Amino acid sequence: MAAVSPASRFSASQFSAANPKAKPFPSSFIQFRLSPSRHFPSSSSAAAAAAVPSLPRKSFSTSISCSVRPEYIPNRISDPHYVRVFDTTLRDGEQSPGATMTSKEKLDIARQLIKLGVDVIEAGFPAASKDDFEAVKAIAEEIGNAVDEDGYVPVICGLSRCNEKDIRTAWDAVKYAKRPRIHTFIATSPIHMKYKLRKSKEEVVEIARSMVSFARSLGCEDVEFSPEDAGRSDREFLYQILEEVIKAGATTLNIPDTVGINLPSEFGQLIADIKANTPGIENVIISTHCQNDLGLSTANTLAGAYSGARQVEVTINGIGERAGNASLEEVVMAIKCRGEHVLGGLYTGINTKHITMASKMVEDYSGLQVQPHKAIVGANAFAHESGIHQDGMLKHKGTYEIISPEDIGLERANEAGIVLGKLRYHSTYRTSLSEFIYCPTQYLMGLSCSIELFVWAQFRYIEGLTY
Amino acid sequence: MAAVSPASRFSASQFSAANPKAKPFPSSFIQFRLSPSRHFPSSSSAAAAAAVPSLPRKSFSTSISCSVRPEYIPNRISDPHYVRVFDTTLRDGEQSPGATMTSKEKLDIARQLIKLGVDVIEAGFPAASKDDFEAVKAIAEEIGNAVDEDGYVPVICGLSRCNEKDIRTAWDAVKYAKRPRIHTFIATSPIHMKYKLRKSKEEVVEIARSMVSFARSLGCEDVEFSPEDAGRSDREFLYQILEEVIKAGATTLNIPDTVGINLPSEFGQLIADIKANTPGIENVIISTHCQNDLGLSTANTLAGAYSGARQVEVTINGIGERAGNASLEEVVMAIKCRGEHVLGGLYTGINTKHITMASKMVEDYSGLQVQPHKAIVGANAFAHESGIHQDGMLKHKGTYEIISPEDIGLERANEAGIVLGKLRYHSTYRTSLSEFIYCPTQYLMGLSCSIELFVWAQFRYIEGLTY
Repeated sequence: MAAVSPASRFSASQFSAANPKAKPFPSSFIQFRLSPSRHFPSSSSAAAAAAVPSLPRKSFSTSISCSVRPEYIPNRISDPHYVRVFDTTLRDGEQSPGATMTSKEKLDIARQLIKLGVDVIEAGFPAASKDDFEAVKAIAEEIGNAVDEDGYVPVICGLSRCNEKDIRTAWDAVKYAKRPRIHTFIATSPIHMKYKLRKSKEEVVEIARSMVSFARSLGCEDVEFSPEDAGRSDREFLYQILEEVIKAGATTLNIPDTVGINLPSEFGQLIADIKANTPGIENVIISTHCQNDLGLSTANTLAGAYSGARQVEVTINGIGERAGNASLEEVVMAIKCRGEHVLGGLYTGINTKHITMASKMVEDYSGLQVQPHKAIVGANAFAHESGIHQDGMLKHKGTYEIISPEDIGLERANEAGIVLGKLRYHSTYRTSLSEFIYCPTQYLMGLSCSIELFVWAQFRYIEGLTY
Repeated sequence: MAAVSPASRFSASQFSAANPKAKPFPSSFIQFRLSPSRHFPSSSSAAAAAAVPSLPRKSFSTSISCSVRPEYIPNRISDPHYVRVFDTTLRDGEQSPGATMTSKEKLDIARQLIKLGVDVIEAGFPAASKDDFEAVKAIAEEIGNAVDEDGYVPVICGLSRCNEKDIRTAWDAVKYAKRPRIHTFIATSPIHMKYKLRKSKEEVVEIARSMVSFARSLGCEDVEFSPEDAGRSDREFLYQILEEVIKAGATTLNIPDTVGINLPSEFGQLIADIKANTPGIENVIISTHCQNDLGLSTANTLAGAYSGARQVEVTINGIGERAGNASLEEVVMAIKCRGEHVLGGLYTGINTKHITMASKMVEDYSGLQVQPHKAIVGANAFAHESGIHQDGMLKHKGTYEIISPEDIGLERANEAGIVLGKLRYHSTYRTSLSEFIYCPTQYLMGLSCSIELFVWAQFRYIEGLTY
């Protein structure tokens, strides 16, 4: 597999987290830069990370749980704690208004997804257009055959509605991959069946059953089925249609909260109920797909995994229709930070050091910039502004930092990772002054702020201000 | 209270959700504009909304649960389902790197917070600087006395560390309000006490107890106490320190997940444990304050409310230190959409029609732009790109829409609220063509897209493409 660095395509403004000169705020210092390893990545870095044995951890440890990635078998995972990461940046992510990407850009992103070590890449919707078909086919041919020394190669998946033409087109695009998958779907909620499909429950079950069977008949041994709008579907009907598609040969059952209406307890219960009540469910993988309309997609995805889902559908930066999807970086880092203690030992195969580069690339190609306070990948995600926080960071990083920036491919430009603002006070002022002398170029843009703070600090050195 | 419209301060680019000409993406139509009522707000709109009696709702209804706002008593709420909204945009939000605001801007935002009907405004950290003090004082004097015809006036709160000087300064700033509150805090987690405070548990309890007592001695009858980093604090120690501050006169106990490390089930359990094990807890209000480092702040806040917290600390757009706080719009809209069915009947007093204007104002004043896919207030939050979604929206909005844009102060510019992109297909094409003729100015910028889609659609009219 060719290692292509997309860095040359990024504009300065899009590297604000990495480049202190590109900071968007007049009185802030952005104190992280890209880790050198991210510019010269090892082709086997994902596999190397995945090969690190898991370690027992304490309650609030942030170390990574990386075990050997279980062998890929479509409908089962040998390790009950392993969660597959299904990235749909190139399909649902591209469905973001305005996020259309070229085939070349999609290939670049797919190469980055390999570095991350995602288990499944949903490469597109081949029946949507000739361009989509060609993009998926190209990804299947290149990325879908880039087997590394440990045998890792991502599944390449194509989306299709439940009709023969879509499914045949999807198969024609993905079949070149070593591990091709067809993902087909039909809506199962009362409102979707009545108004959008205009079909009865019986008709919907028959379409789903026959189309999964058709996909298998083409020679595809890895078929994912989604009951669209499952979050608002009738439970008994879900058990029934899922039972039928399992019998027809589906290997993964994806449960979408299509409109983002579920709360975490509710979505977790949905997954638990499906696991408990669907005949044959023990022979397939349950998956989550959570939209973010109420800002709950990450929490819903984690609740689903905790309840038994072993595939999570996510996108880089959380892009997607409307308010987007669960974001890969949030879900993966939450599992990494708390999987052992709070989620019963769940872990993924993601090499998190490639998260920042993936985020920047998707930001650039999709045109959808993440907000400064976006969790994990926002420009401010590791920045500390108030004096109380800065004081804590200088004394011990663990006081206000639960994830090391290095874990996601950033490197500290100073010891504290502090943004200077008006709320800081004297103890942090001293450090910033020494760094101002040590690293004048980096701090030049903060000159006026530093002078202002110097004057201010003289008036603020009061006994008891730090405690 | 003077009704000041801040609309004139907004740049065109910041009204992308409202102004179709300001769209950031080359092939998208932004199809919403500000609701006229938002330009000419009624001074009693918040109270009017709060006066609507609550209605029973179905499982997936999106109607609003607005009851009469219970009378304000610092340490109790007569209606057990009412959740106070404590907005800290002006304090924790301003703590976002680069988000420093002027006193004039803070006053503008506070005026907008009244329209929203927030219960408490944390106006700043008066001891941080003379400017902060003056801004809090000005808000206490104006906003803190703007009692409407229904008796609603927000509590004005000032933050202070646990020392006499901070507390006295906070009181001197907020005491002009009809309902002043002092919010004091000290860290209680082992890592914060050891490395940042360098104090023993006993010393921390004594400081907290004596400083809450000191705040009450000044004449302040509404004192909030926060054990900073409660999310990583020892449970028994939390019960102990909270018991002591209750005895000393605290009326609200705020439980912060300061570093954003908790998962929703965990944070909910923390609130439940505090409620079950702290002597005297029945005489105070429990509050949540959730940082967003893992993207879980909204879910954690809701979990806390479900477990018994009756105050939620939030910010407009979710701004704040690092990855920010729980966002007001997400928490409030989640409670509005699902409070009745999933959260045991919880509701707030927020008039959600003022959300969009509040979001735009904070975006403008803080300089922190929200991403297009930000839940509720992002430019794409009500936009539908793929053909399948557009088809559903044209047939019935409920297929893909759980919140009406009108509920947050937007108005549809067309019937479907659709963004045109390459994934749409013929049935939506027809609608867009008619609207193109009907509304040429609005659609002018999408001309090339429409022509491209017209050609494309001719090749895509295949039987069975819609189902």
